Amino acid sequence: MFNDVTLRLNVDSLISMALREDISSEDVSTNSVMPEKCIGEADLICKQDGIICGLQIFERVFTLLDPEVEVTFYVKDGDRVTNRQLMARLKGDMRVLLSGERTALNYLQRMSGIASYTHQVAQYLEGTKTKLLDTRKTTPNNRIFEKYAVRIGGGNNHRYNLSDGVMLKDNHISAAGGVKKAVKMAKDYAPFVRKIEVEVENMDMVEEAVEAQADIIMLDNMNYEEMEKAMKYIDGRAEVEVSGNVTKENIAGLTALGVDYISSGALTHSAPILDISLKNLHAI
Amino acid sequence: MFNDVTLRLNVDSLISMALREDISSEDVSTNSVMPEKCIGEADLICKQDGIICGLQIFERVFTLLDPEVEVTFYVKDGDRVTNRQLMARLKGDMRVLLSGERTALNYLQRMSGIASYTHQVAQYLEGTKTKLLDTRKTTPNNRIFEKYAVRIGGGNNHRYNLSDGVMLKDNHISAAGGVKKAVKMAKDYAPFVRKIEVEVENMDMVEEAVEAQADIIMLDNMNYEEMEKAMKYIDGRAEVEVSGNVTKENIAGLTALGVDYISSGALTHSAPILDISLKNLHAI
Amino acid sequence: MFNDVTLRLNVDSLISMALREDISSEDVSTNSVMPEKCIGEADLICKQDGIICGLQIFERVFTLLDPEVEVTFYVKDGDRVTNRQLMARLKGDMRVLLSGERTALNYLQRMSGIASYTHQVAQYLEGTKTKLLDTRKTTPNNRIFEKYAVRIGGGNNHRYNLSDGVMLKDNHISAAGGVKKAVKMAKDYAPFVRKIEVEVENMDMVEEAVEAQADIIMLDNMNYEEMEKAMKYIDGRAEVEVSGNVTKENIAGLTALGVDYISSGALTHSAPILDISLKNLHAI
Amino acid sequence: MFNDVTLRLNVDSLISMALREDISSEDVSTNSVMPEKCIGEADLICKQDGIICGLQIFERVFTLLDPEVEVTFYVKDGDRVTNRQLMARLKGDMRVLLSGERTALNYLQRMSGIASYTHQVAQYLEGTKTKLLDTRKTTPNNRIFEKYAVRIGGGNNHRYNLSDGVMLKDNHISAAGGVKKAVKMAKDYAPFVRKIEVEVENMDMVEEAVEAQADIIMLDNMNYEEMEKAMKYIDGRAEVEVSGNVTKENIAGLTALGVDYISSGALTHSAPILDISLKNLHAI
Amino acid sequence: MFNDVTLRLNVDSLISMALREDISSEDVSTNSVMPEKCIGEADLICKQDGIICGLQIFERVFTLLDPEVEVTFYVKDGDRVTNRQLMARLKGDMRVLLSGERTALNYLQRMSGIASYTHQVAQYLEGTKTKLLDTRKTTPNNRIFEKYAVRIGGGNNHRYNLSDGVMLKDNHISAAGGVKKAVKMAKDYAPFVRKIEVEVENMDMVEEAVEAQADIIMLDNMNYEEMEKAMKYIDGRAEVEVSGNVTKENIAGLTALGVDYISSGALTHSAPILDISLKNLHAI
Amino acid sequence: MFNDVTLRLNVDSLISMALREDISSEDVSTNSVMPEKCIGEADLICKQDGIICGLQIFERVFTLLDPEVEVTFYVKDGDRVTNRQLMARLKGDMRVLLSGERTALNYLQRMSGIASYTHQVAQYLEGTKTKLLDTRKTTPNNRIFEKYAVRIGGGNNHRYNLSDGVMLKDNHISAAGGVKKAVKMAKDYAPFVRKIEVEVENMDMVEEAVEAQADIIMLDNMNYEEMEKAMKYIDGRAEVEVSGNVTKENIAGLTALGVDYISSGALTHSAPILDISLKNLHAI
Repeated sequence: MFNDVTLRLNVDSLISMALREDISSEDVSTNSVMPEKCIGEADLICKQDGIICGLQIFERVFTLLDPEVEVTFYVKDGDRVTNRQLMARLKGDMRVLLSGERTALNYLQRMSGIASYTHQVAQYLEGTKTKLLDTRKTTPNNRIFEKYAVRIGGGNNHRYNLSDGVMLKDNHISAAGGVKKAVKMAKDYAPFVRKIEVEVENMDMVEEAVEAQADIIMLDNMNYEEMEKAMKYIDGRAEVEVSGNVTKENIAGLTALGVDYISSGALTHSAPILDISLKNLHAI
Repeated sequence: MFNDVTLRLNVDSLISMALREDISSEDVSTNSVMPEKCIGEADLICKQDGIICGLQIFERVFTLLDPEVEVTFYVKDGDRVTNRQLMARLKGDMRVLLSGERTALNYLQRMSGIASYTHQVAQYLEGTKTKLLDTRKTTPNNRIFEKYAVRIGGGNNHRYNLSDGVMLKDNHISAAGGVKKAVKMAKDYAPFVRKIEVEVENMDMVEEAVEAQADIIMLDNMNYEEMEKAMKYIDGRAEVEVSGNVTKENIAGLTALGVDYISSGALTHSAPILDISLKNLHAI
Repeated sequence: MFNDVTLRLNVDSLISMALREDISSEDVSTNSVMPEKCIGEADLICKQDGIICGLQIFERVFTLLDPEVEVTFYVKDGDRVTNRQLMARLKGDMRVLLSGERTALNYLQRMSGIASYTHQVAQYLEGTKTKLLDTRKTTPNNRIFEKYAVRIGGGNNHRYNLSDGVMLKDNHISAAGGVKKAVKMAKDYAPFVRKIEVEVENMDMVEEAVEAQADIIMLDNMNYEEMEKAMKYIDGRAEVEVSGNVTKENIAGLTALGVDYISSGALTHSAPILDISLKNLHAI
Repeated sequence: MFNDVTLRLNVDSLISMALREDISSEDVSTNSVMPEKCIGEADLICKQDGIICGLQIFERVFTLLDPEVEVTFYVKDGDRVTNRQLMARLKGDMRVLLSGERTALNYLQRMSGIASYTHQVAQYLEGTKTKLLDTRKTTPNNRIFEKYAVRIGGGNNHRYNLSDGVMLKDNHISAAGGVKKAVKMAKDYAPFVRKIEVEVENMDMVEEAVEAQADIIMLDNMNYEEMEKAMKYIDGRAEVEVSGNVTKENIAGLTALGVDYISSGALTHSAPILDISLKNLHAI
Repeated sequence: MFNDVTLRLNVDSLISMALREDISSEDVSTNSVMPEKCIGEADLICKQDGIICGLQIFERVFTLLDPEVEVTFYVKDGDRVTNRQLMARLKGDMRVLLSGERTALNYLQRMSGIASYTHQVAQYLEGTKTKLLDTRKTTPNNRIFEKYAVRIGGGNNHRYNLSDGVMLKDNHISAAGGVKKAVKMAKDYAPFVRKIEVEVENMDMVEEAVEAQADIIMLDNMNYEEMEKAMKYIDGRAEVEVSGNVTKENIAGLTALGVDYISSGALTHSAPILDISLKNLHAI
Repeated sequence: MFNDVTLRLNVDSLISMALREDISSEDVSTNSVMPEKCIGEADLICKQDGIICGLQIFERVFTLLDPEVEVTFYVKDGDRVTNRQLMARLKGDMRVLLSGERTALNYLQRMSGIASYTHQVAQYLEGTKTKLLDTRKTTPNNRIFEKYAVRIGGGNNHRYNLSDGVMLKDNHISAAGGVKKAVKMAKDYAPFVRKIEVEVENMDMVEEAVEAQADIIMLDNMNYEEMEKAMKYIDGRAEVEVSGNVTKENIAGLTALGVDYISSGALTHSAPILDISLKNLHAI
């Protein structure tokens, strides 16, 4: 769960924008036929197996529209859920339930989709020291939700954005005039609590990065032999990240190398949704 | 392409928000090592076959950061692109190219993913009178991009949001006291340019909907025989929409029924991205 | 009444802006002399006969400033009110009542003015099949209030804005290369729930519009004979709108023609306010 | 004209909001049939005699949408214009002209309506020392435009809002415990550049207000004899304002009294629009 | 204290922005180790002698994050406080107390610093008719807090901003073509409740300003003899302001001149903070 | 200098807000007397010795109001400037120069004040390995400017805000159940690029922090002997920060200890401004 501070400061405005995207003047259908408040109930039902994530956001969509909506949850974020499972029951003005339904489900389905997919990938890494990381390949204006879903699914978060982490890529390095100079410039410029990560493509760069005391070294586009050699050279003097698809096939190799982190953009950019629906809405 | 009016009024603020999501105070890495402006070039390369979509948004991310960035495109939205294809060349301050890269690609990859997937589904309908529709199952705060991508992929847009279309579902109908009353209430209340769509679940409701002069009837949860019967009864007195997955297997049946529209949430909620990257960034 | 969803999503921010327009740093007069909270009461009095409209907005102005203000209403939107009638009693911190008074009345007077004027015009159409429509000639940033007031006064709403209705005018038609092409392009492009309205100026265009299956035909600048001929030709194959001033003098003619809708910009752009004031504010 | 600072800081955001009110996602009609830029021209024609006002805002609506739109004006704010007069010619992308037309005219017609009506009333005061004032009875979120229009029409502006002027009414006075105390409290509290205005209802209050050195005294609800007596007593020791309708009938009396200011809410709350339209749009 | 109207309309959004400046995505430290709500208490302790100011803002920072935080105050704005004094006790979710602490103290320390410094300067003027004024030399986006702190410290407020006061400087005067013309233009243009202040640099300008009936004359860059001469000439026909540093040394001279106001930018631009801290946070 | 990306995304909105704070409707004085554009020049003059900082922000205030204002600088950020030095010349519409002057100087004076004060403190550390850090004790909604000024003055930045750095204080530690658990929880929760800083108060905590592999250890409230002991124990296994006032008196001791960083809140919360003014504005 997001705590109340995060919710109020950083989440509510995004949800409100999403609601206004879906209701630019009013919900014409509902307002046409339901001029009066009418209390009803509805069930939140899972239609696919997976990991549920985003229940608080689902609820918040409704309570931002009407603080009197009540949601009783039978599961919590991170729980494994199965097809047909009753996950929550909502009670409130049926007009509010109808107007908020789509936006609430759009968040819940996406966040659960990411958590479910992350969970699946994270399982490949179980029992190893290697951790699974996300990337900045998130959907615009949905990062806070997607990074949270990765954590719920069992992954870890890489930097949040360009302002809170230093990652020196080939262009940064060549602009600075080499790995060592780049690391020094970053240490001088960036807030001192930043770790410095350097992306390297060959053994020369690995050696320079170690010498420059980079905190994290990212092995980019190296084949297995090169990575093996790099790991041996680094020998614990920096944390090591590799990027790429994690599949059943390549996983054993990567973890055997003893890399600290594997990052995967697919966690956030290509997870299909988890199918969930609101059912049995009825007046009470 | 979005025209300039749409871009300025309805798109720019979303892109700026996405940029601020990724750069909450500054791009620390780039600013550490590149204190001075330095003109460079980079190539936009496709890494997968598909339909490209969102080139204008890709460009706008950079020009909002710096109007002097120039992008030369070799393809246009809707074009079929293939792995390794050079799609555009960018020229501008390398710091801007580095700071905007991720946000620009996040939009382009998602929009192209949706266009590519939509295109694939739309092909099943080729040669029939049935059209493919999207839904409101879009990613929060990305609807304008995703609905556009559906169109580029060969689909059509269902209503944009709850304010600009009337869709009377079972709850609306029972609140109103029947299909006829619901349609009448909607015609009285809603702006008169709205078509009225009614979701029906059985033949009784179909008959009522026709009698009530609904403009569009959506057949929900009906089996093939029921749909056949419904189509016969409606007989052109309303447009007909069915919702659900469109697969090679079920497509022949649905189009044979002669429904006007098939809507699919998956177009926007579960299309994987199209892999695209920015390569060869170098100073010039 | 606006329902709670509309109020929170689409109305509150406009009211808050209006309050900030009137109180850019603080209410200096009130804050000078009333440093302490002091509960008081005041009466909302009508000073002119008319149709009251906007009571909820009037109340919301105060409750956005202070949720503890209580308003007891003795009338409801749409009621006919008369000079000197007590319409509501307010109770709350007198400082809040003083600071909110002007903004609250500015909304209430304008909305009631529009409802009253619309009601007057709508009466001319009573007993006929012709309905009264508003236009987009509303005051900037007040459309949601003014379109609501038209409905309360007995009118109907034309499209809300350029995004939710298609109206093809002469320039659209000539850009497309004729009525038929324009209608076809609009049907292909616009969300499929849109009705297509075409503005026509002569019989040739009427014929084309009918053939193109326009949903609504607007007769523009035609004299009575032309309109008569057009109505005969259309013969129910499309809805018909005429635009212009509705006066006692011309009304019989227009309704005799059997047009479905008459639209009038004056409803929103030239209705004088209904005079209303807050009286007898006193501490209790 | 607003100067550039005012325009950018205080006006542009209101115009943009108004444009978004009218174009919540896109101008569907225009975008359907005009996929390409096409330069055209149109004429701004007056359809009624009056005082023109708001030409700069009219132009700004278009240039905010597209900086390349060019408007050539043949009149300027404050000019007397007559039916059928060509006031300006626009040149630019026809799509932009079509999408911005309604919002631009909504501003221009209202501002010109207020200027025309103010001008008419101000003429009654010509040749006297009495000046005409507006009030805060403006349309929500349109005050900056309406107060400007009053000035163009020959009126003067009363305080802009509750933050920039002190007006002590009966409730303020009784909360403070008398006129003298209220004025003293206001002088102590309010920024020292504020004039202090006091609303009085009888001779006792007039005397107190003069003694308290109020800068402005507003005579409220007094009959002619009382006002005459009040004027004699005040005798130039404070400026004097009376509020109410200014008509040909009552004007001679009020000016004969020698009051400094007459304020009128009707200038902004009940002026009918001036009819203006955009004509002859055509491609060039 | 700000009243509730000011707080909600003009203050809350600034506090929320400040909170988002400090918490751009979440409070990572607190959220790492305190996943659950845990009620705690903390003491607000003064660490320096001074005048306390901003207690309401301090509290509001927390209650905007969580309405359930309770603050019990033992002092109120304007009170003299001393080192080690317990000024308030807070009770609430410890996570909220930790996340809001810095922002709350940043406001409280600055406001108290200004109040303390103003109080010190104001004491030099005690027993004289001369009042102490602030200026517009405030910290950007903190004016409402700083002008309030000046008042709490015993100062008075000059105009709030460029929109609510007229101050004609040398450039305004020369643009107008002299003092008299400038005053006349300002009286014609500005809302009529504005006083007109003129900045003068020599006796010629003083004479012109008096003749033009300026309400306030500001003596700029004059030596003591000039000021003496100016005061004699003005002789109560306008209020007089001098600007500059008020020190024990020069104060007797300035007040002996009988000027009405002395304004000082240092009150807001150079007051050091008052040291205050939150101590003894512990779970209960 | 901020680069263009930072300026557009993260700085411009703050400057615009500050301008609107000072010009809530219009600059009445300037608009009264200068109805027409008039090009003029003015000089930016230093009135005190110090380090100049914020020239780009000074310029941006004007160019946001009017892109045609030109500023020619004779110094750059970080330069030592002296009383009476001409630092820049501005050219542009005099109305814009007058309306923007105060806001531009408010930024420039404060930023230069911080840079000057930081520079002074940083000199004490010259020739040692100890670096000077700022804190989060910045003025609300001015952090981006103040942290930049610290860098220009020769200081380094501590974390930017609560979202981009982990600092575990006593409450975090006791909530977690000890230093080791707290560090572990932070490493599990926080984005992996974060360094973990722990605040310790005694040797037991120092030992725990080292064992827990904290990246940075902050010695809080320790006397010299304790710090000496702590430094010996830590022995390079973590970076060490001490907080507090840096004075000529205590500096030798602290640097002799070999601490890596000394942080000081006074850099941003109590630096007096550097006096700067705009002079000789005249038409050309």
